[in-house]
Formats: sequence, structure tokens, C-alpha cells
Amino acid sequence: MPDLDAVLAHVDSNLDAATERLFATLRLKSISTDLAYAAETRACAEWHAADLASIGFDSSVRNTAGHPMVVGHDRSATGTSVLFYGHYDVQPVDPLELWDHDPFEPLIVTRADGSRMIVGRGAADDKGQLMTFVEACRAWKAVTGKLPIPITVLLEGEEESGGANLPPFLDANTEELRADLALICDTNMWNADTPAITTSLRGLCGEEIIIHAADRDLHSGFYGSAAANPNHILARIIADMRDANGSITIPGFYDGVPELPKALKESWAKLDFTTEAFLGEIGLSAPAGEKGRSTLEMVWSRPTCEVNGMGGGYQGAGFKTVIPAQASAKISFRLVFDQDPHKVRAAFREFVRARIPADCRVEFIEHGSGTAVAFDTGGKAFQRTQDALTREWGRDAAFVGGGGSIPVTTLIKDKFGIDVVMVGFGLSDDRIHSPNEKYDLKSFHKGIRSWVRILAAL
Amino acid sequence: MPDLDAVLAHVDSNLDAATERLFATLRLKSISTDLAYAAETRACAEWHAADLASIGFDSSVRNTAGHPMVVGHDRSATGTSVLFYGHYDVQPVDPLELWDHDPFEPLIVTRADGSRMIVGRGAADDKGQLMTFVEACRAWKAVTGKLPIPITVLLEGEEESGGANLPPFLDANTEELRADLALICDTNMWNADTPAITTSLRGLCGEEIIIHAADRDLHSGFYGSAAANPNHILARIIADMRDANGSITIPGFYDGVPELPKALKESWAKLDFTTEAFLGEIGLSAPAGEKGRSTLEMVWSRPTCEVNGMGGGYQGAGFKTVIPAQASAKISFRLVFDQDPHKVRAAFREFVRARIPADCRVEFIEHGSGTAVAFDTGGKAFQRTQDALTREWGRDAAFVGGGGSIPVTTLIKDKFGIDVVMVGFGLSDDRIHSPNEKYDLKSFHKGIRSWVRILAAL
Repeated sequence: MPDLDAVLAHVDSNLDAATERLFATLRLKSISTDLAYAAETRACAEWHAADLASIGFDSSVRNTAGHPMVVGHDRSATGTSVLFYGHYDVQPVDPLELWDHDPFEPLIVTRADGSRMIVGRGAADDKGQLMTFVEACRAWKAVTGKLPIPITVLLEGEEESGGANLPPFLDANTEELRADLALICDTNMWNADTPAITTSLRGLCGEEIIIHAADRDLHSGFYGSAAANPNHILARIIADMRDANGSITIPGFYDGVPELPKALKESWAKLDFTTEAFLGEIGLSAPAGEKGRSTLEMVWSRPTCEVNGMGGGYQGAGFKTVIPAQASAKISFRLVFDQDPHKVRAAFREFVRARIPADCRVEFIEHGSGTAVAFDTGGKAFQRTQDALTREWGRDAAFVGGGGSIPVTTLIKDKFGIDVVMVGFGLSDDRIHSPNEKYDLKSFHKGIRSWVRILAAL
Repeated sequence: MPDLDAVLAHVDSNLDAATERLFATLRLKSISTDLAYAAETRACAEWHAADLASIGFDSSVRNTAGHPMVVGHDRSATGTSVLFYGHYDVQPVDPLELWDHDPFEPLIVTRADGSRMIVGRGAADDKGQLMTFVEACRAWKAVTGKLPIPITVLLEGEEESGGANLPPFLDANTEELRADLALICDTNMWNADTPAITTSLRGLCGEEIIIHAADRDLHSGFYGSAAANPNHILARIIADMRDANGSITIPGFYDGVPELPKALKESWAKLDFTTEAFLGEIGLSAPAGEKGRSTLEMVWSRPTCEVNGMGGGYQGAGFKTVIPAQASAKISFRLVFDQDPHKVRAAFREFVRARIPADCRVEFIEHGSGTAVAFDTGGKAFQRTQDALTREWGRDAAFVGGGGSIPVTTLIKDKFGIDVVMVGFGLSDDRIHSPNEKYDLKSFHKGIRSWVRILAAL
């Protein structure tokens, strides 16, 4: 394969330029959940459309009711057509004081062992990852003048903020986006040396609750005990959601959650995974969830309920003896197998309402939902991708479960009836969604090389 | 009493000038809990020292390890010597967006019924109240050239932020501050027409806890269930502190809390108080505390545990699927009778530690403590003050319990062995510690007149 070797060599000798392009998009503050950054989010979409055009894609920024999509086509080749999905929006950066550098001034940091990492918001999630694919396309075009297969690129700007406009966009542009196979680069390797294809993902149900009690903040010395304190009501609800064994107590929550198939359980048991190492990396040691379940089960195949944020009353410096008028929480459920996010949401709301005193009230805000998804790994696309990854990394690529949720995977599977191959080069220490997010330069470099090989193999 | 009548007439004809002086101190942002306002807090102390000097007090600003004290003496008269205590610091103003006006631009707002109120942070707590006493002194001096009795004024700048420097200040200046009787103006009337002398106050124990779990914020899709979530740990602790009957479950918490004496219980039952009206005023209807206790018992003679603030994780706009590294809460206990704040604090900390997983840790921050206090209302000072108030208001002044905590009352009682007569003109709808704090102009006017009479009676 002289073409393939030449393209890989081109990737190696042009890595600095590829990194510079990645830095250009990392500098754009595309925080989709905060409308204060709407203009900069659009600017980021425009940057990606122009970048795709520079490779020869027929690209455009496409308006939605929220942040825009970027779509690019290069269908001059023949063969298996591919829809590649990535997202150009990023998470908020707070707490800002915990960043060592400006989150939007990306830089290369060299570790004591000489390895290098790209640091900045979005370095791994998902700008660094999506650019591995784009750079692979660029290298093929630069060396051979064409892509190996027909490719459509779809970049979303609301993955981190619910993605409400993706389903109507897919509906309105079904024919334009139709392909034989979908590729997504938004997942992790098994470890720093072993590539992985994620074959299942958990679903998501996001809810925000705001509990309203008195019509104003009160002095706790005058009204303490007598007046309902929404902090107490909220704490009771959160505590009640778990029993002593760590199981979720919302009625019907486990409907549609079977025991893990024996074969899959056995294959996971063979992976070189230890709870000590997994939790030790983040400064913890004891699994906190359901008793009697393995850690891999918890994060890949069991549903979760996590309070991602909560607050009520005075949180500033010093002390203020207040009973607040309201308290709120943002709660996410990760769903597996056949759990229905709408049923989970309804059951949760009923559970909450039953714990609100008659003279208080609760407000609910919906923050996205998606069902879990799983693929049969026996298909050609999965096998060819696995082979290509194994050749690049010199280790057998693993088929793994994914704990996170990528709602687009389900949408694409349901809409087009096609397989979705999820390959990513993130590592568990990338600190995505946290301060000092990073992406190893090795992930970026060998990620590009991996896609070069995968495109050839498909 | 021609002198008394002349002084009262002087108060009536000089009310506008008195209000202007009050506005001058209300404009100073003496938020003691936030060190960003340290310079303005000192400026407020200097304003009060100068104001006292303008009446003829020998006054000074006295440095402490925190915000300064103001001390003024005028001991030219003979008779019962008095130590008057007030505080010139105020609560923070957040949430600022709920104020109808700038909290530090005081103004007079006229209600539909023609009554007027002074609106601004500190209008009632405690600048408006302390100035009723100062203006009464000013009127006596203006009309008669002297005060009826020897008076020392002590104004604190840290009442709203723990008051840590008051005990050492009293220790260091015991002889200078010694008096036969103490007066404090920081409490409420029984209702808008009925004056009250507060004869008991609850104590306080303030604690802040910070729960630390993982060493960074985590993605809840990757680590959910497996990694400890400090929001869940905190919610469990808060929920566990109350049983199904609303009783506090911290071991030993009720040590030193007797049943209310029958006579006091009967006297309270005679007050025209209804739970419906008390809670209805703030938009609530059902008492939230201990089952089987009356609302007055709850707020005057039972201990409380209130979460004044709590927070953890993402609280901004939108959604962020994070497991935070930490969560925290500010919790205050109001104490009664012989409860020991140090024992309560120790028991609380043990209760919390028992609920922290082995791989997490908790940090405690102490925010002040004070024991409860009660006085025998049979003494001369209480009777004379009651008579003076009854004459001014045309209604029998009530002896009432107080739900709040004024630690200085206990300090003065213990240090000097003297009675502390607490008379205030606040109303339950003054919104102290809340947005749109106000003080009725009638409270200010008749408050000054009340002190004029009390000084004559003592």
C-alpha cells in the first residue's frame, strides 16, 4: 500500500501544522450552555466550515433554533459512504481558579517523562478528537488528491447543552446526510497503549428541580423550625433516592435493566482492570455505588443517578443566618438497555412531588434525554476498524462499554438504520469537563494516523 | 415633668434632621462578613464616633483584630449608669437583583395607607434601631444641656460576622465599660402597636462543613456510581439530622433543654398569636419543625438546626454532567436554656464524621457560638422600662421571648453581672437579612420618644 505509507509519512511530517490548526479552534470560546458565548460559538462553527472547505469539502454553517451545525461533503470517491459526527462546543470552564493556564489559550505542556500534552478547554472533548479525523482527511487529499471513500462531516454545537436541535436537523436533512456507516470520535482508549472501539453507551435523562418555600429569604433566628427550609427538603429528596445498599429507590427505575449477559460479563472480567487503579487515579479507593456490583458493571451497564449540582441559601464568604426562599439541584440519570428516559423522568417527578410540603412548590426543568444503545460487533465495519487500530497501535484493539451518553449515536442508529463505530483516543486522565483538560499529543498524532488507516480499510 | 415634655416635643420637631443622620450611616457599606468592605466598615465606625462627639460624648474608634469598636462616654449626670450596645455592621445584600432600590441609597417609601418606611440595608438591623437611642440622647442634651443618667455607648462592627473580637475587647476594657445596667436596641415590638421587652434569647452555634471526595471534578458518565459524590454525602448528613417527627437526631443535642415552665407557657398562650398569620405573612401555612410543639415554642424556646447555605457542583445556567470534588454547607443551631454550644459543636462534628466515607474527608469551620440567656423580669429596671413604654404607646408593653441570638447579651450578663434590658422597635415584616430591608418611620420616631422616656424613668 504505497499510498497509505505516503499518507502516514505526511501526517508525521506535518504534525506541527495540524497542532496549530487545533489551537485555532481551541481558542474560540464555544461554551454552548451559556448564551453569553453564542457569538463565539457561531464563530467556531464558521472556523470549522472554512477549515473543511480548505480541504476541498463542500461545507456550510447551517442555522438551527439554537447554535448552528457545520456540514461538509466530499463524495468524489466510491465505496462505503461514511457520516462522521463530532461536536465543536465545549463545557463551561468554572471553577476558573483551578486552571493552571487560561483555558482558551491552549499550549503544549511537557511532562517529566518527556511526553507532551495539549492543554485547554476542548482539547479532548471534542475538538482534539474531531480534528484527528479532519486531519486524516486532509492528509489523504494532500498526498493522493482524493479521499478513499465518500465522506460527510457533521459537527454539532450543542452536544454539551442538551442537543435539542439535532433530532429536527436530522429529520430535515435525512437524504443529504444518509450514509452506509457512521463514525464518531468522542470516546476513550482502553488505556494509553491500547485502542478501543466503544460498542455500547448509556442513555441520559437530565432534570433540574427548583424548590420554592417562603416568598422571601428569612432570618433563621425568627423563623427557624417553623418555616419550611428548602435546603432540608432538597437534602431529604436526594438522600431518599438511595437505599442503604446504594440502589435507586425511585419506583420502576430498574424496569428494563436485565442482568448483564454472561458472555459479556466474562469478557469484561478478562480486561486488565482494577478498582484500586481506576479510583486511585482520582484520589479515591472505595466504590460508592450499588453493593454487590463490580465497578465496571457500575460504569458500563448499570444505571446511575448523580446530583451534578445543588445549591440554596448563602454560599459566599463568612456566615449568614438565612432560610432561603428556594433551593435547586441538577440531577442526571445514566440509563442502560431498555430503560425509557421519559418514564424515568415521570417517575422521578412523582417521587419529588410526594416529598414537597403542601405549602411549598417545585419547578422542573428538562435537560435532555436519550436511550442507551449497543451494537453487534460481528459486522464488517467493526472488524475492519479493529484491524486498522491494531496495526497502528501494535496491540489488539478492545471492544468496550461506555459509561457516558452520546445521544447522537442512538439518533443515527434509529434514523438511518446503520452501524455507528465509535473510536476515540481520549484517556481517563484527560480531565474533560474539569479544569486543566488535556489531550495527549500522542493521542492526537496516532489518532490522525489511526483514521488514515481506518479510511483505507473501510 | 416639664423637661420630659420639652424633650419629646424637640424629638417631634426635629425628626427630619434625625432621619437625615440615619441616612448618612445607611449609605456606608459596612458589610462585616466580606473583607472587601473593610475600609467602608471602618469609615462607618468613624462616622458614628464623630456623631457621638457632636452630642458631647467623649468618643473614639477602637481597633481590634477585626473591625473596630466605637465607644462613647457621657458620665456627667448622676444615678443609674447605663451601657448601651448596638452594632453598626450589616448583612450582605445578595441576591441584589431582588432589591427594588440600591440597598445603600436609603429612601422613604410611602405605602398605600399613607404610612412611611425607611428602606435600605441596615434600616432595621441595626443602624435604625441604635440611632433611636442616640437621637434620644441628642434630644436630652439639646433641650436640657445634659443626659438624665451617666451613659456609655458601645457600637460593635462584627455582630453579623461572628463577633469574635467582642469578648477580648470586653476583657481588656472591663473597668471603662462597667455600668449598673445594660440596654440593647436590636429586637422587635410584639406587633406594630404593642411594644415589647425581650427577656430571653436563644444561643447560637454556627458551623461550616466542606466535604472533599475525588481530587478533581469528574465526568459523571465515566465515574457515576463508582466515585463518591460529595453532594450525596452532604444530602445524607442533612437528611439524617432530622427524624420523621422533626426532632434533631444528633446525640445529646437536647441535653439541657427542659420543658417550658408552665407559667411562661400560659402567658405565651394569652398573646394574640396565630400560626396562620405568622406563616401567612411569608407565604407559608404549615409549621415545619417538631411535631407536637406550638409555633411560639419552636421559635422562642426550642433549639433549631437550619442549613443556611449549601452548594456543590455546577450551579450555572444549563447543565453540566459533573461529579464535583467538594460540597459544602453552612449550618446554624439556635440553642436554648442550658445547651452548651461547645458540646453541640463537638456532637455535630462527630455525627458528620461518622457519615464520611473512608476515602473522603471533611473540613470544619467554626462560625461563632453563644449560650442562651434569660432574665428575671421582676427587677426595677424591667418594671420602669415597661412603664415608660406603656406610656409612650398607650398599650401594655409585653415581656416576650426572642428567637434570635445576641451573643453580647450573655457576654455582658456574665462579665458585669448586670441585667440587660432589650427593647427594640423592629417589626416582623422588616425583612432584615433579606432584600428590601425596611424600618417603619413610626418605629424610628416613637422609638426615639420611647428612649427619651426610658432614660427619664431609669
